Amino acid sequence: MIDIDTFAIIGGDQRQIAMAESILDDGYKVNAVGFEKTELKKGIIKTDMDNAIKKSKYIILPLPAVTKNNCLNAPYAEFEIKVNDDFARKMYEKKVFCGMDSKLKLTSDIWNNIDLRDYSKKEEFAIKNAVPTAEGAIEIAMHEYGGTINGSRCLVVGYGRIGKILSSMLKGIGANVTVSARKSEDLVWIKIFGYNTILTRKISSNHNFDIIFNTVPALIFDELVLKNVAQNSIIIDLASMPGGVDFEAAERLKIKTIQALGLPGKVAPKTAGEIIKNTIYNMIEEE
Amino acid sequence: MIDIDTFAIIGGDQRQIAMAESILDDGYKVNAVGFEKTELKKGIIKTDMDNAIKKSKYIILPLPAVTKNNCLNAPYAEFEIKVNDDFARKMYEKKVFCGMDSKLKLTSDIWNNIDLRDYSKKEEFAIKNAVPTAEGAIEIAMHEYGGTINGSRCLVVGYGRIGKILSSMLKGIGANVTVSARKSEDLVWIKIFGYNTILTRKISSNHNFDIIFNTVPALIFDELVLKNVAQNSIIIDLASMPGGVDFEAAERLKIKTIQALGLPGKVAPKTAGEIIKNTIYNMIEEE
Amino acid sequence: MIDIDTFAIIGGDQRQIAMAESILDDGYKVNAVGFEKTELKKGIIKTDMDNAIKKSKYIILPLPAVTKNNCLNAPYAEFEIKVNDDFARKMYEKKVFCGMDSKLKLTSDIWNNIDLRDYSKKEEFAIKNAVPTAEGAIEIAMHEYGGTINGSRCLVVGYGRIGKILSSMLKGIGANVTVSARKSEDLVWIKIFGYNTILTRKISSNHNFDIIFNTVPALIFDELVLKNVAQNSIIIDLASMPGGVDFEAAERLKIKTIQALGLPGKVAPKTAGEIIKNTIYNMIEEE
Amino acid sequence: MIDIDTFAIIGGDQRQIAMAESILDDGYKVNAVGFEKTELKKGIIKTDMDNAIKKSKYIILPLPAVTKNNCLNAPYAEFEIKVNDDFARKMYEKKVFCGMDSKLKLTSDIWNNIDLRDYSKKEEFAIKNAVPTAEGAIEIAMHEYGGTINGSRCLVVGYGRIGKILSSMLKGIGANVTVSARKSEDLVWIKIFGYNTILTRKISSNHNFDIIFNTVPALIFDELVLKNVAQNSIIIDLASMPGGVDFEAAERLKIKTIQALGLPGKVAPKTAGEIIKNTIYNMIEEE
Repeated sequence: MIDIDTFAIIGGDQRQIAMAESILDDGYKVNAVGFEKTELKKGIIKTDMDNAIKKSKYIILPLPAVTKNNCLNAPYAEFEIKVNDDFARKMYEKKVFCGMDSKLKLTSDIWNNIDLRDYSKKEEFAIKNAVPTAEGAIEIAMHEYGGTINGSRCLVVGYGRIGKILSSMLKGIGANVTVSARKSEDLVWIKIFGYNTILTRKISSNHNFDIIFNTVPALIFDELVLKNVAQNSIIIDLASMPGGVDFEAAERLKIKTIQALGLPGKVAPKTAGEIIKNTIYNMIEEE
Repeated sequence: MIDIDTFAIIGGDQRQIAMAESILDDGYKVNAVGFEKTELKKGIIKTDMDNAIKKSKYIILPLPAVTKNNCLNAPYAEFEIKVNDDFARKMYEKKVFCGMDSKLKLTSDIWNNIDLRDYSKKEEFAIKNAVPTAEGAIEIAMHEYGGTINGSRCLVVGYGRIGKILSSMLKGIGANVTVSARKSEDLVWIKIFGYNTILTRKISSNHNFDIIFNTVPALIFDELVLKNVAQNSIIIDLASMPGGVDFEAAERLKIKTIQALGLPGKVAPKTAGEIIKNTIYNMIEEE
Repeated sequence: MIDIDTFAIIGGDQRQIAMAESILDDGYKVNAVGFEKTELKKGIIKTDMDNAIKKSKYIILPLPAVTKNNCLNAPYAEFEIKVNDDFARKMYEKKVFCGMDSKLKLTSDIWNNIDLRDYSKKEEFAIKNAVPTAEGAIEIAMHEYGGTINGSRCLVVGYGRIGKILSSMLKGIGANVTVSARKSEDLVWIKIFGYNTILTRKISSNHNFDIIFNTVPALIFDELVLKNVAQNSIIIDLASMPGGVDFEAAERLKIKTIQALGLPGKVAPKTAGEIIKNTIYNMIEEE
Repeated sequence: MIDIDTFAIIGGDQRQIAMAESILDDGYKVNAVGFEKTELKKGIIKTDMDNAIKKSKYIILPLPAVTKNNCLNAPYAEFEIKVNDDFARKMYEKKVFCGMDSKLKLTSDIWNNIDLRDYSKKEEFAIKNAVPTAEGAIEIAMHEYGGTINGSRCLVVGYGRIGKILSSMLKGIGANVTVSARKSEDLVWIKIFGYNTILTRKISSNHNFDIIFNTVPALIFDELVLKNVAQNSIIIDLASMPGGVDFEAAERLKIKTIQALGLPGKVAPKTAGEIIKNTIYNMIEEE
């Protein structure tokens, strides 16, 4: 555990709020900026940006840190917070943690001289977030599919982090699970763990799935594949934008498709906040 | 499979609609009464009661068949349908299937002279419905709990049909599952299948659960138990009315409690309809 | 836990020895009779029958208590111990526990006047013993089958205690598991828990199993079924004598068949001894 | 599938015999050399080395190919077969597959001019062999441990291929499974899949295991760790030589230790032979 010290949490959504509470519960001081429109747990100090930064050793920016129009990602802030040279300049001498740093760095060259680290790039962070993502996908499937997951035929496309966890959970609920992967080694693993296997590029030869979960950020489900595989399926696309489905074709074919992004923050903000917190703690410890 | 014949489906909700479609898909004729307010799949014949009954060998009434004020349980009907001697009299010479026959029989003595059978009393029906009930409970838990089921501490009270399936699914998702039962034999089974065990009457000695699922229709969670066990829990009560929780006490203690009834029809109408259908088919076959 | 008191353990095999040690470890006095040919843990008092009985409140006889020629089942005894009126008479005023009491009672009418109870009839005992039986069956399968259980096609005949546990373990190892049962309700359960289902009387229609485990004490595998189903299988018969396989026909057909009886004592004497002990403790507590 | 062609299988144990049969069953011609002391399936042609090589496109050497004294690893051969320049020279123009090629290459520089490939280095081969290794370890545990795996406390040291499969199987049987790993990322995975976690370097702080499986080829279990952790345990060491246990210290401490090497060939020769075959087929296909 790190030394008793002070954190400034600047901007963010439910996850950052949950994180702030959890850091407070660990016994640290927490200054919060950009949460005017919501209540925070007693003990978290709402203050202005300059004061928060001045009093804190560690600054935590949200995930992602910056929105499209170069403002801070702070949905609970009363006013927009511009992210520019001025913003960056305040961070000198601080240890700053953020999510998806590449866009943040584009907003100012000053970041090159700041101790800025990206928690969202950590492998630990990615693995842990795959859990709420998988559960969120299952919740959507339960809600959208008229039958039960138990006994349904599910296809999980991709055997990366999300694919591994999602297929395990679906099997645990009693689904008949097929997992696709590109690499033959992965197919060996998939078979050992008791799933049906299929090479991703051969998906379109099999067309009896009730629910399809895509985790691969590549256009797997083009019009042809949709026609062959998914005529009676629901597709839940978990791949980051632009996703793995030709959504227009899906609409034409009347295939129900749900694009599910940012699930951890939506379905399990408490867990998502703790994941960020623990990742940052470990980054501090590793120094 | 029974001989090609004709069914009349009189009243009911999404489940009976799904059942009607499924019977139609099996190649039988289906007459439907009491669905004026909704569209039915092409091929299902909407007609009036007398015609439907006259043309059908099998009559299927909903689950439950009768509402509190002695009307047919027919939420999609334009007008109320009284269940009385007249209603019963129409069923002479028919094979009638219904859910929860005890209340139906109170509406007329004529039922004693009719071939009336209750599909909801069949063991097969009860087991199969435990699946959508368990999944519905998990969906609620995923929605209401701020963390993930994976890694959470779950208590399942009761190791009957729902308890057996629910605990297996929760473990499959990666929860830390404790199951309570009254009988020591059940505890032996619970331990063998890898759950933590606790006698139901000793529940209040353990107070570290994130999510509690009650399946026992008895007042397990009175004020004292609530205080000892559930201060930081969410309780999902699956037991039939009046349930297993002192809801007023729970409210005073600010414990979030969800009473979840009739889940199969709500979360998986398609599956629920097929369960009714298959149960009736088997009852016909067993004649 | 029962009061501090004294046990006499008279006859038995490795299980009773393990039980004796476990009772000693619980802090009770243990007198042992009929173990001349083996060493016992320090603290267990080897003595003669009359002294052991005199000093003990509880007498524990083995499982089964009696061998074919009306002697005590005591493989570690130097001399045979006759079970007759004299033997029974010694037990007056004692609480006597035995396995399979029906044969014991045939040896003397005096047993009718003795507080004699059969631990092997307890449901708890039967369930718990199904665990070492299932594991023993898997150990045999691993040893005899040239391939791996993972990925093999296994048939479990019967969904009683052993069938439930064995099918769960086989699936846990990654086998493709089919379970047969007589009752349609059981088939519903089997399907929910993710196994392939088959009615026991329709077994012979499917003939692609690598390993067949029989748990049903009835002649399921007659010559015809063997021919249809088991030409390339190994059969492990767990049913009590005379078993469920026509062994002569199996030999003619060159089908490898292993009749596996009394597995708990053979594969897990420590566990088997503790099962007897705990069953007896619970019988004492329930008084 | 490769073109119809001819294989020469030169030397090897039960695995190579099973492989030879399996290749024959696939419809290829198989010449076998070095199996004088055993019978081979009808259709496999026993012949001399020169003839076998002449008639075959593919040569398969055993795993490992060479024994300590530079002879071919051919336990079923009547006479020793020297592996030297002469041996290598025969392989010109052939496609040669072997296991553990490094030692083979030391026997002659000629190998540098031969199309020699090592199937034992393929990731696919290693993953697949982890299955019979894990099952063999469980069979040993079942045989050596006096209790049941179900309910026992197992420690799996290392979360590589074997660790992943072994822990999954043990949990499937109902053990209480703890898995240790060096990397924190692995601990995240271990936790998600429902095991207890421990850092490998902190193993000695926990001392309540019934069965310990070591998969890490490093001296984890030195005298101190043995004393702290394993006083009442059985240790099954699956790590390649020299293994992960100070066996002398274990003997002094009277801790039962089983060093289990080469399990695939011993416990599942049929599977082990098919693994070699399929790896070679894939190597041929990938050309």
